[in-house]
Amino acid sequence: MVYYAGVDLGATNVRAAIATDDGATIGVSRNATPRGPTGIDVTEGVLRTLREACGDAGVTPTDVAAAGIGSIGPFDLAEGAVIDPANLPDSIDRIPLTGPIEKLLETDEVHLHNDTTAGVIGERFHADRNPDDMVYITISSGVGAGVCCDGEILDGWDGNAGEVGHCIVDPHGRLTCGCGHDGHWEAYCSGNGIPNFARLLADDDPTIATDLPLENPDFTAKDVFEFAGEDELADYVIEQLAHWNAIGVTNVIQSFAPIVVSFGGAVALHNEELVVDPIRERVSEMLLNNVPEIRVTDHGDDVVLEGAVASALTKGTGDRRHLDA
Amino acid sequence: MVYYAGVDLGATNVRAAIATDDGATIGVSRNATPRGPTGIDVTEGVLRTLREACGDAGVTPTDVAAAGIGSIGPFDLAEGAVIDPANLPDSIDRIPLTGPIEKLLETDEVHLHNDTTAGVIGERFHADRNPDDMVYITISSGVGAGVCCDGEILDGWDGNAGEVGHCIVDPHGRLTCGCGHDGHWEAYCSGNGIPNFARLLADDDPTIATDLPLENPDFTAKDVFEFAGEDELADYVIEQLAHWNAIGVTNVIQSFAPIVVSFGGAVALHNEELVVDPIRERVSEMLLNNVPEIRVTDHGDDVVLEGAVASALTKGTGDRRHLDA
Repeated sequence: MVYYAGVDLGATNVRAAIATDDGATIGVSRNATPRGPTGIDVTEGVLRTLREACGDAGVTPTDVAAAGIGSIGPFDLAEGAVIDPANLPDSIDRIPLTGPIEKLLETDEVHLHNDTTAGVIGERFHADRNPDDMVYITISSGVGAGVCCDGEILDGWDGNAGEVGHCIVDPHGRLTCGCGHDGHWEAYCSGNGIPNFARLLADDDPTIATDLPLENPDFTAKDVFEFAGEDELADYVIEQLAHWNAIGVTNVIQSFAPIVVSFGGAVALHNEELVVDPIRERVSEMLLNNVPEIRVTDHGDDVVLEGAVASALTKGTGDRRHLDA
Repeated sequence: MVYYAGVDLGATNVRAAIATDDGATIGVSRNATPRGPTGIDVTEGVLRTLREACGDAGVTPTDVAAAGIGSIGPFDLAEGAVIDPANLPDSIDRIPLTGPIEKLLETDEVHLHNDTTAGVIGERFHADRNPDDMVYITISSGVGAGVCCDGEILDGWDGNAGEVGHCIVDPHGRLTCGCGHDGHWEAYCSGNGIPNFARLLADDDPTIATDLPLENPDFTAKDVFEFAGEDELADYVIEQLAHWNAIGVTNVIQSFAPIVVSFGGAVALHNEELVVDPIRERVSEMLLNNVPEIRVTDHGDDVVLEGAVASALTKGTGDRRHLDA
């Protein structure tokens, strides 16, 4: 019997899963992502989590035939390492992943992807028609996409294809993105951006009534959605989010011509009616390209981990024709 | 000796070229694109042009080993035909291309692409490093892109990948695109869009002095560029075009992460200093992704024809490793 491993390395948690050759999960583990002091400490945390998942599944690491990794970036893809991750301490400048996992599992079949790319691999693998043209869009603390076009998972020479959260939606550039540039989609519509967007809209029109705690430093995107239907400003923010999200998604569809767009990430997952449904309603009025199916992932918070497992099963593609079974 | 053929089918002209296995052109032909009455008349015009190019080269059609076609769309890719082309008479609903050319040349190696995709294949083939990640953007009567990502030429399931002229750059949607939707890049920055954009900007601020013949139905984009440096409104239009083009190009680069962006199309080709140089200056302030090389094609109006030939030489890829020679 051969087994397959998936790893989801986030800034907060590292998770691992072991699956059989039909994709059924038989073991899992989760740990807090080590905060350093060095990248090697993070590597060791990943290896430990992977060993624990093997233990949970009752298999030895060398029984694992292939692994997929969905990880925070950016990457040195040639070296299979994360370099200078944004949301971990500055002392962590390099997290070797592919090499150490190959060594642990005694396989050279280890596929490293950014988390959104792992997302599209998993969504493609589990989709009814196993489509060749599909986009996974995460709306969480940031915004980004993983893309499969013509059956190929897109990376780009530097791993930066699908970095659509840094597409410009506001030509006036009124909000500055975490990356330092103005007008980017994620500056308005991500979990981190929504509080700033709410404050901007309140400043624009102080006559809009609101009980949102705009001046409280703990004010979050979640507050906006919780006040939906009960607060004039919250409803206006949600309506404006729909507008800017629809622009971003229109541009993704015009660029990649997907047949399915699948959403994940906490903002989309927890607010399907307020965030995803309005996008679906609006894009058909904005697109020239064919209107794709627009859906929310069935895998919730497991989408990256499931995608990493799907990558292991399908040689990094999500294409079921590549199943070893 | 084997030969290779390229066909450029536009709404105005159909052109063909015959090349040797090192890509050197040895025969050409050009005819007006037949205006119907049916699509078969267009097919016959293409075949005649191809036979004439063979005659010019002194080769018989069956000496041609492979052909590439860069064509107006949209396509039925499975059938190798153009369907309902926008800029030809309505009576032309279907132009068979791949099948009839395969029959003429007695080869099954015929690659059909839209014109921008042929553009990127040619630009990739002729580029110094033969890059795997490259975008060709045309700014002519419309705006569109041909994309190579990770060494794969992107089509999309319906041939509509890279239809970036219909990305939204203006969230207020003040100009309506030829496709009927509002705020699209090509509504503002294409040859067809620029006169409307100039009128919009003049309406916004009637105090801007201008000698542009805004009310003349023959007013064209060319007039705007001819008045550059001598007319306040013309200069303002050109400055605003730079802004909207930079947004469009930023979004292309964030989506596809190219290492080279090459421009073609009459608006870009004839106004490199006024159109392309300002894009180059602005995108580095807008991008998170790495700033690619931004250039203008060396092939001028031949870029689609050269790309079609390059497709024939490289099995539809532009990848020099696929040269038969």
